[in-house]
Amino acid sequence: MGNLGTPITENLLQKGHALLVYNRTAAKAQPLLEKGATLAASVKQVAEASDMVFSIVSDDGALNQITLGADGIAANLKPGGVHISMSTILPATATQLQAVHQQHKSHYIAAPIMGRPEAARARKLNFLVSGEAPVIQLAKPLLTDGGAAGIWEFGNEVNAANVAKLCSNFMIISAIEAMAEAINLGNKSGIDTAKWHAMLTQTLFASPVYINYGNMILKDAYAPGGFALRLGLKDVHLVLQQGESAGAPMPTAELAKKQLDACMQQGLGEHDWTAIAMALK
Amino acid sequence: MGNLGTPITENLLQKGHALLVYNRTAAKAQPLLEKGATLAASVKQVAEASDMVFSIVSDDGALNQITLGADGIAANLKPGGVHISMSTILPATATQLQAVHQQHKSHYIAAPIMGRPEAARARKLNFLVSGEAPVIQLAKPLLTDGGAAGIWEFGNEVNAANVAKLCSNFMIISAIEAMAEAINLGNKSGIDTAKWHAMLTQTLFASPVYINYGNMILKDAYAPGGFALRLGLKDVHLVLQQGESAGAPMPTAELAKKQLDACMQQGLGEHDWTAIAMALK
Repeated sequence: MGNLGTPITENLLQKGHALLVYNRTAAKAQPLLEKGATLAASVKQVAEASDMVFSIVSDDGALNQITLGADGIAANLKPGGVHISMSTILPATATQLQAVHQQHKSHYIAAPIMGRPEAARARKLNFLVSGEAPVIQLAKPLLTDGGAAGIWEFGNEVNAANVAKLCSNFMIISAIEAMAEAINLGNKSGIDTAKWHAMLTQTLFASPVYINYGNMILKDAYAPGGFALRLGLKDVHLVLQQGESAGAPMPTAELAKKQLDACMQQGLGEHDWTAIAMALK
Repeated sequence: MGNLGTPITENLLQKGHALLVYNRTAAKAQPLLEKGATLAASVKQVAEASDMVFSIVSDDGALNQITLGADGIAANLKPGGVHISMSTILPATATQLQAVHQQHKSHYIAAPIMGRPEAARARKLNFLVSGEAPVIQLAKPLLTDGGAAGIWEFGNEVNAANVAKLCSNFMIISAIEAMAEAINLGNKSGIDTAKWHAMLTQTLFASPVYINYGNMILKDAYAPGGFALRLGLKDVHLVLQQGESAGAPMPTAELAKKQLDACMQQGLGEHDWTAIAMALK
């Protein structure tokens, strides 16, 4: 029931789905109860009662915690039940969790999300999905009801969508860092960087990443909210870990890590990850 | 009369302009003579005979060479004549050359170009311009006839367009490097990177840079032509020089320099600058 879990739940409720919800801090689920959701006392209770369980947590450790063990999703889903895992995690974790579900005769699919909370509310999310094809087909209408504008299928290997998601988040933080450097260079060189940004985003870089994040950098406004810098740093760590295990050099990710680390030391962990620009100051 | 000079000249000829052309290697101008241009024996002869002189050369040294001295453009333009300088150069060079033109009662404006040869032929170039406003107004119809789809004005400071151009080229090489790392990571992790690229360029990164250069990286095809890697490296040097003089840290440009240097050592200087991807192999 975080920044993305909440609007996705609201979207599903709006479409008439009966939802049993759980959040570690029960108070955060309260507004959803008023919209028709039912509060569960535990993850175990959600898993026992549901055909499909959506999960979205902030890291691999939290996902393992709610999935594994006697009280976890895998052990308590009914046979044939489906765990739709939306968290951004290491691809190897998806492979391991799928195996545990298979032992319990249930299913695990990867469905990490591209999109910020405002996109979730506008039903403009993109889901990257991978895993057993028939299970993906079962899940797709629910993803649509949850706010998907696009569902991108990456095949049977359950970790493929997680790789695609890490590659995508890496692209975003790389784009933000480059824009931060360019705008800082332009400002310090005395040009009208708002005009430069307008030119760039009407020509070669006419895309949402450059328009939205560029405007934040131009205004030097990185208020808390959106996507927290500390979570961005977590994703960069996953990218570096995946790079290492795949044997792919990721020098730009190393650079992003360095800049984000510097921001953490400036106490910017809860600011939007666009605050990576502050490492240049 | 290089990759961009040739199609721009052809565009101007098509629009009915009388052109006197000069190229260090006269043979390269030959096809243009057949299309109606007149060959000059020297830069001096071009300057003496013309109201407006376009120049496009590969670096600051070459521009200084054709502009300064007794045989240069500045000393030989008639009073009130205009030098439209399209090269990608250090901003400080533009300021210096404008001053020399002013001593000779002629004008110098900066008009660096965003666009590859195929964009020039399709009349889809973007010119970034700066300098004296009335002179810019005089030059604009010629830029349009030369193939401008967009003319972006950065004000009276003559070096502003050069700063904007360096910031833009920096953005492109940063985007290429990030895509190269992500596609390599995706490939080595076993995902369908063509599908990933399709997803990315239909959502957050739906823009020409990611579509065009991404396709080159997916195909691992960096044939000579387009924009030579050695020229990209030259631009990155300019970005780093500008960063240093403006007091703006450019860690991503330093990284790009390192990767491009590695490519130069692999003998890829004449390949397209997308070949920066080869530094990861």
